[in-house]
Amino acid sequence: MDSAAIRKELVKMLGKDKVLTEALDLMYYSYDSSFLTQMEPADPYAVVFPKSTEDVQQVVRFAHENNINIIPRGAGTGETGGCIAIEGGIVLDLSTWDEIVEIDAKNMQVIVRPGVIHAKLNEELEKSNLFFPPDPGSSQMCTVGGMVANNASGLRAVKYGTTEQYILGLEVVTPTGEIIYTGGIKARCIKNVSGLNLTKLMIGSEGVLGIVTQIRLRVWPKPKARGIAMAVFDNLDDAPATVLDIYQGGLLPSGIEILDSSAIKAVNEFKPEINLPECEAILLFEVDGNLPSVEYEGEQIKEIAGRRARVVEWSTDKKRMAQLWEGRSVTASAASRVRTDGTRVFAGEDISVPLAKVADTLRAIRQLAAKHGIQVVNYGHIGDGNVHTAPVINPEIPEEVERVLKLVDEIHLLAIEMNGSTTGEHGVGAVRRKYAELEHGQAVEYMKRIKQAFDPKGIMNPGKLF
Amino acid sequence: MDSAAIRKELVKMLGKDKVLTEALDLMYYSYDSSFLTQMEPADPYAVVFPKSTEDVQQVVRFAHENNINIIPRGAGTGETGGCIAIEGGIVLDLSTWDEIVEIDAKNMQVIVRPGVIHAKLNEELEKSNLFFPPDPGSSQMCTVGGMVANNASGLRAVKYGTTEQYILGLEVVTPTGEIIYTGGIKARCIKNVSGLNLTKLMIGSEGVLGIVTQIRLRVWPKPKARGIAMAVFDNLDDAPATVLDIYQGGLLPSGIEILDSSAIKAVNEFKPEINLPECEAILLFEVDGNLPSVEYEGEQIKEIAGRRARVVEWSTDKKRMAQLWEGRSVTASAASRVRTDGTRVFAGEDISVPLAKVADTLRAIRQLAAKHGIQVVNYGHIGDGNVHTAPVINPEIPEEVERVLKLVDEIHLLAIEMNGSTTGEHGVGAVRRKYAELEHGQAVEYMKRIKQAFDPKGIMNPGKLF
Repeated sequence: MDSAAIRKELVKMLGKDKVLTEALDLMYYSYDSSFLTQMEPADPYAVVFPKSTEDVQQVVRFAHENNINIIPRGAGTGETGGCIAIEGGIVLDLSTWDEIVEIDAKNMQVIVRPGVIHAKLNEELEKSNLFFPPDPGSSQMCTVGGMVANNASGLRAVKYGTTEQYILGLEVVTPTGEIIYTGGIKARCIKNVSGLNLTKLMIGSEGVLGIVTQIRLRVWPKPKARGIAMAVFDNLDDAPATVLDIYQGGLLPSGIEILDSSAIKAVNEFKPEINLPECEAILLFEVDGNLPSVEYEGEQIKEIAGRRARVVEWSTDKKRMAQLWEGRSVTASAASRVRTDGTRVFAGEDISVPLAKVADTLRAIRQLAAKHGIQVVNYGHIGDGNVHTAPVINPEIPEEVERVLKLVDEIHLLAIEMNGSTTGEHGVGAVRRKYAELEHGQAVEYMKRIKQAFDPKGIMNPGKLF
Repeated sequence: MDSAAIRKELVKMLGKDKVLTEALDLMYYSYDSSFLTQMEPADPYAVVFPKSTEDVQQVVRFAHENNINIIPRGAGTGETGGCIAIEGGIVLDLSTWDEIVEIDAKNMQVIVRPGVIHAKLNEELEKSNLFFPPDPGSSQMCTVGGMVANNASGLRAVKYGTTEQYILGLEVVTPTGEIIYTGGIKARCIKNVSGLNLTKLMIGSEGVLGIVTQIRLRVWPKPKARGIAMAVFDNLDDAPATVLDIYQGGLLPSGIEILDSSAIKAVNEFKPEINLPECEAILLFEVDGNLPSVEYEGEQIKEIAGRRARVVEWSTDKKRMAQLWEGRSVTASAASRVRTDGTRVFAGEDISVPLAKVADTLRAIRQLAAKHGIQVVNYGHIGDGNVHTAPVINPEIPEEVERVLKLVDEIHLLAIEMNGSTTGEHGVGAVRRKYAELEHGQAVEYMKRIKQAFDPKGIMNPGKLF
């Protein structure tokens, strides 16, 4: 069936309102935030907006019968090309299917459709003194369905873990158009160890095993107090060493972030009034919990971080906390402006390494960047070894593009060499699948067998993951 | 190949010291703590004690070539027949392969072989101010490998989650004798979202997908203080309502346990000096963290629980805490003694239901028990809706056995009816597989396909899970 015929069938099936077919509209779906898809965009045959499990099922059955690829998409904030029809196909845009089906506060859980925005969900939960802890940087835009697909995390993973920790059950339309319920068909319980854990298998599977159409999430009591500490280091190695000191002091902050000298410089150039101290590294700690605990842990952090830091400031004042955190808040924007003729590209941007190797990794990245003549800004979730590197280039200059691709390839290889992973939180998508064998070896064979068991025709989001 | 020939081959392969072949020795491996296997024990052909991945690989390859079943076993503390050769085969006793390979404190993780005892691991970790939070009742006996196979949890799951939350990577010998590494071949990082999450798929898979031969675990800073509260309720419904009040007050205790009137009576008969107050239900809260936090939360629990409870007592004194907790500590032993001619049987013992249905569930279990004329003792991890029921019978009387089997069948069905699960923490094993379709529907088909993808010959722990 050619793409024009596919479009016609989809409109017949779902009505005009739920299907995009015009070239201009489709172009918008040809890329996400990844550099790869911005360089090599790929239009889908059509985009559909399902509003029910039946809609999804209809489209998937049609695609399955006719061997057409299906690519699920949330808000398109991904940085790996995970939601792009790189081998052609129908994009299922789930972002407008955004119902919060039920806030079941008495059972500490919530049921949502995949399109609900993360920040919106937490706004609603706050009314019941509850929250869904994972906190991706794209909170204001990203969908919970996308978070499930990528096992997203962010700032608070160090204490609260990643998305998967909160997912109790899923409704899934499989690649053959069947509906399955993971975690129990009718279940509303928290604990369940019955059967193979399909819930956790689906999380982070990036849409290659099926379409998540409903999500049952565990939520937690919202902590009542928080505090922020900023510690300034003249020696890069003292930053990760301090993180370890903090852990060994029995503390588990809700966030531990690092800005290295490149990020500090970028922030100060971008917004001079923030005026971060010139140094090798800044650590930011966020602590949450009840007020006496937060105050105690603030004192502890001042004392422990003070052993190695030039200076440590601690605050529980709302305004001052925002100021202390502002450098981190604007880092991503600041990174894009370090060159007036350049822009940040998302590639090689979220490797994960063991805590003890963070300083060596940052130094190695700087060296690689210097070797290739590419400016980079380094920051990240140091508490769990998740390093963000922002390469800044002029993408109009082919030779720079070539150099940056060489650089990010070496950053990915460095991650594996450092006993880390090519991706700590953004996922594999189309961008990192070439490292699958190197990172996982023979295990990839078993991943492929699982894929085959779910999707014998290989129509679900092909060209991703491995 | 007959079982005598299998024994001969195994001795030839591994030497006499690593193989049990005598009928008397094999009998010990014919049952675990489940009532089912105590009624219907099943001897394996042989028992082997692997001491290396190569040992495991040799045995599995031999079994695969000759179509012989393989059944992995830890300490045999399981309550589901999960480690029993119910369809014949070779038992791999991993309990003596108990090395702590490395405590990598600087990366907040530890590498162990499957046989290490849970309590022993935490003893060693304590020297580095670290701990592995899951806390099964069988801590002094159970192996970490068994915890992984069953996704074990226990008292602290309400705050700290289950075993899976801490597993970063596994070395696995697959049913065809290959070695795979989940979570990255060389990885020592905390965060990793690359590829399908085989680590989480293996956890709770009860040995049907392969043999776990090495485990990389995340560990946490050990909290410095704890406190215990006991709240006494005259109305059963007030107990779960108080748990919800506590959550809505922003508190997340490290344990919330319930004893209902049946358990209170059992404890007081077993050890009159404990002298629990006569009432409908007792809640026990454990709080941990830093000292100011623990003290604050203790005050909060006194205030919040005090709204519904007849009396609340709170203590951070070590001796008094042990006294307050003693009723819970002895419940399992006490349950076995409620009849001088009876014993507790492990069957239908760990259903999980939504918090809001705990009181109705306890009442329904009492009614079912009365209907069948079986005495039961109810207690459990109420914080996450995990109800423990101890039926007490004289297993020598066939008619009582028949009645208890009817009762536990109805308890399992009740769990599903209450939107819960047949098993919150002990697993499916041989005992609960008949409920798989009812609980998971079409999802079971996908579990079976995964099984098939890993184990085409069906030799890994057959007759379990589904």
